Amino acid sequence: MAILLKKTTLHTDSFGFTPITQAVQAFVTQSGIKEGICVIFSPHTTAGITINENADPDVKTDLSYAMNCIFPKLPGYRHLEGNSDAHVKSTVTGASETVIIHDGRLLLGRWQALYFCEYDGPRVRTFYTKILEG
Amino acid sequence: MAILLKKTTLHTDSFGFTPITQAVQAFVTQSGIKEGICVIFSPHTTAGITINENADPDVKTDLSYAMNCIFPKLPGYRHLEGNSDAHVKSTVTGASETVIIHDGRLLLGRWQALYFCEYDGPRVRTFYTKILEG
Amino acid sequence: MAILLKKTTLHTDSFGFTPITQAVQAFVTQSGIKEGICVIFSPHTTAGITINENADPDVKTDLSYAMNCIFPKLPGYRHLEGNSDAHVKSTVTGASETVIIHDGRLLLGRWQALYFCEYDGPRVRTFYTKILEG
Repeated sequence: MAILLKKTTLHTDSFGFTPITQAVQAFVTQSGIKEGICVIFSPHTTAGITINENADPDVKTDLSYAMNCIFPKLPGYRHLEGNSDAHVKSTVTGASETVIIHDGRLLLGRWQALYFCEYDGPRVRTFYTKILEG
Repeated sequence: MAILLKKTTLHTDSFGFTPITQAVQAFVTQSGIKEGICVIFSPHTTAGITINENADPDVKTDLSYAMNCIFPKLPGYRHLEGNSDAHVKSTVTGASETVIIHDGRLLLGRWQALYFCEYDGPRVRTFYTKILEG
Repeated sequence: MAILLKKTTLHTDSFGFTPITQAVQAFVTQSGIKEGICVIFSPHTTAGITINENADPDVKTDLSYAMNCIFPKLPGYRHLEGNSDAHVKSTVTGASETVIIHDGRLLLGRWQALYFCEYDGPRVRTFYTKILEG
């Protein structure tokens, strides 16, 4: 019987985007599933999962820069841990992505990659990959 | 045959986040499904579904505060209902979350909860929970 | 055997939201699937998929206006293509939406429509629709 759920651990920097496409594709390949969907889920409240460009590393830099410019540490925050901006970034990024599987491959666009988004690191983090056949 | 779709009604305040994890978990338990995914979907255009911290209530307060600071009522809005800011908040929050089911439980992180996000209440609102086995 | 994956091509303007609900519903109808979910996925990194109001066209105008006000071309961007703002808009919008299928219909709210969001056009774009029965 195919294994359809996997937990992956990663060590993050203080802030930024870690590419995870290869790890997710390796699990899809291992599962043997040819058609279906794949849910990549972050169980954290100060991190997220996104899809964005895989080519020019400046795009990752600009995304990090923009997240801090647009969702800064606001003076009115009350949460004593001091990381409410990271909780907001987590909600606007989203805790998961859903990707179609076709012919055993993640059906991503040519310039797309999956990223784990760290907004309050460095930490040891995890994400889950769940495959549904169909 | 298992019932895999449920509609839930809630009464919201003018603005803010209502926890819905327990209601969703109760339906997953009732379904008897042990492995799969669960889609929680808001059929509204001035509300959304998110996942964020379940512990310190200040995080909810800070999230509400940030949504109003960062996505305010802009002077250039044309929509006569005057709630375009709520439509924008709805799009950046997202209309749904997808959560993995493992061993009959929502596979949420220790600090994660599901929230219904009201951006233009008070209203009687609904959300759907759909379970897929696999 | 039902066809459960479809690629759709569209021609976009420089910026804005194209309604795609009818195209997605037509494919769901053609598939014959009565219960399940549907994933609508954009394979682009300067575009996205969202759900928002289908009635007053001013809401679409206001959404476009807000995306440009809140996620502008920041002076600190380094990416030489000059479209980092579009990459940021793509991440906060999200690359996909997941909609429940019930009784052969997309289970959308009365005021909801699916939109393809162009943030760096005009271009020839595509999106995928994947159906899972269950």
